[in-house]
Amino acid sequence: MTTPLQRVDAYIDQHFDRFVGMLGDLCAIPSVAAQGQGIDPCATRVAELLSAVGLDAQLIATAGNPVVYAEAKGTRDTTLLCYNHYDVQPAEPFDLWHSDPFTMTRKDNLLIARGVADDKGELVSRIAAIAAVKHVLGDLPVGIKFLIEGEEEIASPNLAPFIHANVDRLKADACVWEFGTHNADGVPISYLGLRGICYLELSVETAKIDTHSGIAGSILPNAAWRLVWALNTLKDQDERIQLPNFYESVIAPTARDMELLAALPDSDEEMQELFGNSMFLKNASGVELRRREIFEPTCTICGITTGYQGAGQKTVLPARASAKVDFRLVPDQKPEDVVKQLRAHFDAHGFHDINITVVGAGRPARTAPDHPLVQSLVASAKDVYGREPLIWPMSGGSGPNYLFSHNIGVPIVTLGVGYSGSRIHAPNENIRINDFRNGMRHMAALLMRLGA
Amino acid sequence: MTTPLQRVDAYIDQHFDRFVGMLGDLCAIPSVAAQGQGIDPCATRVAELLSAVGLDAQLIATAGNPVVYAEAKGTRDTTLLCYNHYDVQPAEPFDLWHSDPFTMTRKDNLLIARGVADDKGELVSRIAAIAAVKHVLGDLPVGIKFLIEGEEEIASPNLAPFIHANVDRLKADACVWEFGTHNADGVPISYLGLRGICYLELSVETAKIDTHSGIAGSILPNAAWRLVWALNTLKDQDERIQLPNFYESVIAPTARDMELLAALPDSDEEMQELFGNSMFLKNASGVELRRREIFEPTCTICGITTGYQGAGQKTVLPARASAKVDFRLVPDQKPEDVVKQLRAHFDAHGFHDINITVVGAGRPARTAPDHPLVQSLVASAKDVYGREPLIWPMSGGSGPNYLFSHNIGVPIVTLGVGYSGSRIHAPNENIRINDFRNGMRHMAALLMRLGA
Repeated sequence: MTTPLQRVDAYIDQHFDRFVGMLGDLCAIPSVAAQGQGIDPCATRVAELLSAVGLDAQLIATAGNPVVYAEAKGTRDTTLLCYNHYDVQPAEPFDLWHSDPFTMTRKDNLLIARGVADDKGELVSRIAAIAAVKHVLGDLPVGIKFLIEGEEEIASPNLAPFIHANVDRLKADACVWEFGTHNADGVPISYLGLRGICYLELSVETAKIDTHSGIAGSILPNAAWRLVWALNTLKDQDERIQLPNFYESVIAPTARDMELLAALPDSDEEMQELFGNSMFLKNASGVELRRREIFEPTCTICGITTGYQGAGQKTVLPARASAKVDFRLVPDQKPEDVVKQLRAHFDAHGFHDINITVVGAGRPARTAPDHPLVQSLVASAKDVYGREPLIWPMSGGSGPNYLFSHNIGVPIVTLGVGYSGSRIHAPNENIRINDFRNGMRHMAALLMRLGA
Repeated sequence: MTTPLQRVDAYIDQHFDRFVGMLGDLCAIPSVAAQGQGIDPCATRVAELLSAVGLDAQLIATAGNPVVYAEAKGTRDTTLLCYNHYDVQPAEPFDLWHSDPFTMTRKDNLLIARGVADDKGELVSRIAAIAAVKHVLGDLPVGIKFLIEGEEEIASPNLAPFIHANVDRLKADACVWEFGTHNADGVPISYLGLRGICYLELSVETAKIDTHSGIAGSILPNAAWRLVWALNTLKDQDERIQLPNFYESVIAPTARDMELLAALPDSDEEMQELFGNSMFLKNASGVELRRREIFEPTCTICGITTGYQGAGQKTVLPARASAKVDFRLVPDQKPEDVVKQLRAHFDAHGFHDINITVVGAGRPARTAPDHPLVQSLVASAKDVYGREPLIWPMSGGSGPNYLFSHNIGVPIVTLGVGYSGSRIHAPNENIRINDFRNGMRHMAALLMRLGA
């Protein structure tokens, strides 16, 4: 007597080569949004794959790349919404790849190609799970909806209008987010939220042209100095952000959040090895390091450019200077508040001359750790992996999950096929075959748990 | 009955086309030190030109480009040393030139070519003056020495060892420096000194690799922030440099210096127009603006580079950041003191991680405004221009004049053929024909005054 999950496993095993082939075909379409390549062919192929497992799939035009939307009813009223994307990062620099990025290559226990982890592997694993569950149960236990956008890698510029225009269509009881990972031992890791982001360009111009620093160094204002002085007022050396009211809306982690963080294994040494630095900010370690990683808002200088940057000496007084500054926000901070606080702060400090341009913005969002969806996720992970997943109450990264949680009102978890060495966005992106298989099984188990 | 100067004028007029041709031939040799072009042919040609007017000229090897050294005795023991250079700046960007940079072009009252002002025009004007004076007086009234280097445009890396090795040979009573200019009305301008310079690269590395700002923004140190905080401690928003003892060795301008500055015409409006800024630092204007321009030491950020500097957003935590910082020094500040003060300052403020690399350094030097050489310069300008020159007690710029004043013990003035629109180092470098002629006459008049 076999259990439904054992029959799911058998189906997946039997058809595994087909799913690997499906992933290879999808990775062969270089759907690079930043370069406008392969977008329509990839969207069309994705819709075909979803239709083939019985979903009603269509391409919906946006002001940018089309969204693939698909849905199917289930035997119960419960509906699961899947968020994925069919676009990938550029593969450059090509010379760092050990094999062609758009020809999926199998090496030992790895599948290697651009998009194999982010996010085509997850998409195929969900299609495989649907096929397996339908084969075993005869029908889908819960309704399924897919929103698969084609602009995730260029910051989803048309996603918000799409969601606003399709709130009713997208209504669901639970959402599985696009990324999922495993640790070195193959234990699945889930994130229950994402920090928000407020990405700004700060710029200042003090003259029409750069000047000789000998002639003008002591009489003309210097854009580089203006920028340095202005930036310096934003954060003190104790890492405290100085904007008025910046921390006012921050919600402290709960005891349950801290309990989850305490249950996670230490990764201090691994991170030190990876980044090559001997000390973390504020000497944090262990649970406190993890708390800081996800529950502390940041003000990161991502880049500064001004004046001469080549070899040797050029004696120039720069007329223009600019910085890219990235605030990561925790619940319930809002990027629009940060922009207002920043303008007020600069003005109060005499920096009327610093221009602020909003490059990208998104609110933080999270799902409560004890939400029934999380319980289902944990239970389905136990079904497949024989142990509980590692649960991070938030991720340090950002993404458009707020658009879903706020507009559709849906709880969100991550579940997928990657691992800590997947090299997403980098050359030689890869997944482990076993994680790919387990991702399919985990998704199938979750569908059955939600329909139970 | 004609005066000797009238006969000098007549000689110059008669041979003027020949001197223009000599300048054109010299400009046709693209002696670009930065690109290692045309160095030996140009040095050889310069030595030939000096030999042709009766000097004993030779090429002397250095660790870099050869120095052209030439000398001739005069009827008196007094000796004048001329410092010039035969190398020129690169002509790039070529497409901004209205004529070929290495084919001297005459347009209206202008001669246009790379090097026509800086510094081949000055060199030819001195050769012309020697020819004219010898023709009129039968002999040189004073001894002449020329040190013509071939690396001025790449910061004279081999000049100090050359001077140290040739102190006796270079002994002189007066020195004419390489650059000289005229205002819009053709009135000659002389500078009696140059600020020193201490050009540094400040760099910091906080990790092996750049990191995702979402993953690591609140836990890893950020090189850009370290650099901003460190730079901020160097100078306050009131333009006061914060290094310990930085101002200790500064010699305040004398009453005579201020009298000279008061005699100079205001150029505030002209500079505002040129640079397109509405206000000078500390709202300075007039005499105070000129005092600040030359007698205030500076700490200029010439450039900063770190992290992502392209379009749009890249969420990166930079592992490395660096700045080019240029201190201009007034008598009697020393660049080696600044480096020590800076290291002590950074260490005292917890910035042990900021590395300091000295890219270039030179001390300030000046000649007293009432030195007999300056009196001769003024008198000879009156002979030629019918009025006194505009005397700046210092220039805001820097150069290796300290090597001469300190090691050879010689007073230095500038005298030459350029004007405020000469565009040195820029495309369409040019001189006005009348300034070229007056530069020859002024040099001849100075030789006769020094020999009187």
